[in-house]
Amino acid sequence: MDTEKRREPPTPLMRDEKIIEQPVDQQTLTRRYTEESIAFIRRNKDKPFFLYLAQTFPHVPLYASDDFRGKSARGLYGDVVEELDWSVGQVLQALRDETLAERTLVVFTSDNGPWLIKNEQGGSAGQLRDGKGTTWEGGMRVPGIVWWPGRVKAGMTSHNFASQLDLLPTFVTLAGAWPAKDLLLDGDDISQMLLEDKPLPHRAFFYYAGTRLNAVRKGPWKIHFTTGSPLEKKPAQTHRTPLLFHLKRDPSERWDVAKDNPAVVADLVGEAERHRQTVVPIKLQLEEWAEAPAPVVAPLQPE
Amino acid sequence: MDTEKRREPPTPLMRDEKIIEQPVDQQTLTRRYTEESIAFIRRNKDKPFFLYLAQTFPHVPLYASDDFRGKSARGLYGDVVEELDWSVGQVLQALRDETLAERTLVVFTSDNGPWLIKNEQGGSAGQLRDGKGTTWEGGMRVPGIVWWPGRVKAGMTSHNFASQLDLLPTFVTLAGAWPAKDLLLDGDDISQMLLEDKPLPHRAFFYYAGTRLNAVRKGPWKIHFTTGSPLEKKPAQTHRTPLLFHLKRDPSERWDVAKDNPAVVADLVGEAERHRQTVVPIKLQLEEWAEAPAPVVAPLQPE
Repeated sequence: MDTEKRREPPTPLMRDEKIIEQPVDQQTLTRRYTEESIAFIRRNKDKPFFLYLAQTFPHVPLYASDDFRGKSARGLYGDVVEELDWSVGQVLQALRDETLAERTLVVFTSDNGPWLIKNEQGGSAGQLRDGKGTTWEGGMRVPGIVWWPGRVKAGMTSHNFASQLDLLPTFVTLAGAWPAKDLLLDGDDISQMLLEDKPLPHRAFFYYAGTRLNAVRKGPWKIHFTTGSPLEKKPAQTHRTPLLFHLKRDPSERWDVAKDNPAVVADLVGEAERHRQTVVPIKLQLEEWAEAPAPVVAPLQPE
Repeated sequence: MDTEKRREPPTPLMRDEKIIEQPVDQQTLTRRYTEESIAFIRRNKDKPFFLYLAQTFPHVPLYASDDFRGKSARGLYGDVVEELDWSVGQVLQALRDETLAERTLVVFTSDNGPWLIKNEQGGSAGQLRDGKGTTWEGGMRVPGIVWWPGRVKAGMTSHNFASQLDLLPTFVTLAGAWPAKDLLLDGDDISQMLLEDKPLPHRAFFYYAGTRLNAVRKGPWKIHFTTGSPLEKKPAQTHRTPLLFHLKRDPSERWDVAKDNPAVVADLVGEAERHRQTVVPIKLQLEEWAEAPAPVVAPLQPE
């Protein structure tokens, strides 16, 4: 912890465009985000609202408040997860207290799998292969937990696959509106799956590593054209014969069964081709930034 | 399947010392072992009995009967497991039918983890590291399911560790007897854990690879002196500094924490030393066999 702390930049905490603390005391973040969220809910309880609560942790460097540090059986990572669990409970309780629970859809999810090189301070993908930065399932599969008392059946588990690309069209639909006609969306409205446990139509999911299409999934089948990770020092490996995995039989992606399933391979290659034709390349935001005049970096001062 | 079949030796099925079918039709084995077991229970229902039902599968080569082949979502391996599940159900039902359930302790377990090189025809150790032939948890941890209506609480889970070495002293104790005084046993009577969920006394478990002590576990801690597998072509690796894992925080044995826990390392090294002093080397049965005059191998004939 201490070594990590010394190397950290003086991270600012901002409200909108304004720095309100620098360096921020990171042990307070989970609690403060939670309090801010509850205050936001109370302020907006009489009108429709959208709250995006993006917790800092369990990204490294990890911090837990005094109430949680040293309490779990899984070291600091476990302490952090227990504080996040507390936070979720507080937010749900605020919704109940304001009698908003039956009118609010809550989604709990994450942006990627565990950062394995961080060892004990990273997470675990269980039996899924590899982790963050890869297009193996351990890097791509995340929790997807949905809560809406009276609308989403408690304890239900769905084996359909969905992604965060589906959230915008789903939220818009549930709000009684529809996305603008000229907006090309990669996701679908999955509200019928959430509310009525209806199976999703067969559709393909495209696994990108940056701008490279690494893999495609359809039903239980996943084809991998390229494997490797942008976080690894060795270059990604593009397979002359793509790898094929049956994720239902083989969730750990251990057994390439491409040779035995040529028709499946052909179908997924076709999906990739059709998909590529719909993609309009854009300039990466970071490239735009790199080409802009170098910004003058002034030391940041706390207010 | 067919390739595998052609390579198989003409496996005999024996009753006691007598060959009753050769080559045996392996698709029938799970069903026939089950029927034999039920007949044995019925024949012996009026006196104490011990039934050891050692199924052939899911060892490779895999076979399932017509009723199960092609039925599961996990290919032949899944079919085999579903037939074994059926078999267990039949045996338990026979005990119920004979009103023996409340007087019979049933233990379901296995001899090792999955044989990973068999790919889809092997099993999976989930998030545990490696498999059969190694002293990583994926090779050593097996199911331990105990059934005794009215005596063992249904649905209870214990996080104590126990092993098949404990079965003999436990069975003897539950039968109201005690092991012979001059018998040096490596296991303990665990009946109080099974019947009353009492924690076991702190004790060490010793992980052998053949005659070599590879690892020692005590509580959540496991020390690995040597890693590798007799099934692998590369030689086992003995670590100058032993590896230490905390199996509760790190069930996948990913993070060696020996450096941070010198007192734990010293304690486990001491356990290994004390254990070694109690072990009396014996000649391996296979060595005795190898030194005996070569047997005359006559082709086996079915009756």
